[in-house]
Amino acid sequence: MADLIEGKRPVLEALRSGMPIQEVFLAGNLDQDTLVKDIIRKCKQREVKVSSAPRRRIEELVRKAAPKASEDRQRKIADQGVIAKAAPFPYATVSDLVKVADERFAETGRALIVLCDHLTDAGNLGAIARSAECVGAAGIIIPKARSVHVTAATYKSSAGAIAHLDVAEVPNLTQAIGALKDAGFWVVAATEHARDLLWDTNMEGRIALVMGNEQAGVSELVRKNCDLECKLPMFGQLSSLNVAQASTVMMYEWLRQNHGEG
Amino acid sequence: MADLIEGKRPVLEALRSGMPIQEVFLAGNLDQDTLVKDIIRKCKQREVKVSSAPRRRIEELVRKAAPKASEDRQRKIADQGVIAKAAPFPYATVSDLVKVADERFAETGRALIVLCDHLTDAGNLGAIARSAECVGAAGIIIPKARSVHVTAATYKSSAGAIAHLDVAEVPNLTQAIGALKDAGFWVVAATEHARDLLWDTNMEGRIALVMGNEQAGVSELVRKNCDLECKLPMFGQLSSLNVAQASTVMMYEWLRQNHGEG
Repeated sequence: MADLIEGKRPVLEALRSGMPIQEVFLAGNLDQDTLVKDIIRKCKQREVKVSSAPRRRIEELVRKAAPKASEDRQRKIADQGVIAKAAPFPYATVSDLVKVADERFAETGRALIVLCDHLTDAGNLGAIARSAECVGAAGIIIPKARSVHVTAATYKSSAGAIAHLDVAEVPNLTQAIGALKDAGFWVVAATEHARDLLWDTNMEGRIALVMGNEQAGVSELVRKNCDLECKLPMFGQLSSLNVAQASTVMMYEWLRQNHGEG
Repeated sequence: MADLIEGKRPVLEALRSGMPIQEVFLAGNLDQDTLVKDIIRKCKQREVKVSSAPRRRIEELVRKAAPKASEDRQRKIADQGVIAKAAPFPYATVSDLVKVADERFAETGRALIVLCDHLTDAGNLGAIARSAECVGAAGIIIPKARSVHVTAATYKSSAGAIAHLDVAEVPNLTQAIGALKDAGFWVVAATEHARDLLWDTNMEGRIALVMGNEQAGVSELVRKNCDLECKLPMFGQLSSLNVAQASTVMMYEWLRQNHGEG
């Protein structure tokens, strides 16, 4: 099923982010305020179909879009009278990513795939995607369950980079790690529990970099399946960097070690 | 004058961010919706004074808070009936930062000050502050005019780090660079126009790192006054990293070069 985006502001945000949108539904009796006018203008500009829908149809779509919301909340969203149907994100497979990585490796002698161990913030996924695209990573792997997916927030925070990068959604990260090992990757977990600093960790060649959840970091099970682990040194009164910032530093360290400098 | 924050959501956001707030004014006839209830609860929790104010006083405060907004916009904000007075941020001076840097240098043999050349996004300033605090930087310098200042968005995106870091606001960045040079700093500009990569640029000892505006990068005049310049390599289809991500990579490269590894 295509993703549904509900409410005036979220729909406008999605349209602005560059996320592919199939169709926008507006309630027939909708008050044309500034937000609605902006939505209609943006649809025209992006050549997105706008359909008028009866209240009953909007309510039905809201129930599909926000099945867990309270009835009161669903009614409030339906009152806004705006729903968008996003084109499903074209997720890749781990094999697709390995294929791209092999091509990059043949060209440059290096390849990088980033695994996100159950991120909760779609903006962080987007920021990681932007940096991954900048360093020439082959792609990102995320788990299907209990994880953010690619949403309008991801498009926005990736500054569009997510459209230029393969993202694979997998049922099981440990299996994906096994497949990457079989394909010749060294799997490196970034975790504050590591003994070695990133600069003392060999990231030459084909590297799969595992970044942890915003709160809990890399899970125990995933960590056990990694070949190496390393940490970023911290000298402040706060405990940690934002995960997207930490990922970017790790990615540039991979680049440094594979670039002949240092 | 203390900063004013206007409107329900911005005030709630400011209260949640940990930004010091002196007082919150609520219009006498205010409808107690969920947002207003959250604001009152948060004020109680943070021991922030809540005052009831007549409509006329709210309007007056809105005119001070948003002098450039259209009358129509000012009326809309006043209709929300919520204004907060923030405690002025205790900006440091360049001398304060140099003093902290000298202490850090005496302890560790390294010191870092980050100059932001006219950032426009308060969230980016916060993200840079969070990373700066993590690497043990002595502080951040921003220009007084045509630049973001420390706002609720900065508190939020810095995850509170901004409260643990000296920030100096200066009338003139070029003068600040001169003062840092006199204090024994090497001034390094991060710019895509540089010839050398960051890894080939000597960042040992006392370093002042200059990061540019989100769109234009480091300005020509500032660039001319720097001792060195370097760039981050880019291998994607997109042109650049987010400035906060780039800053973090630069800061960790300073740390790497001063840490004995590499």
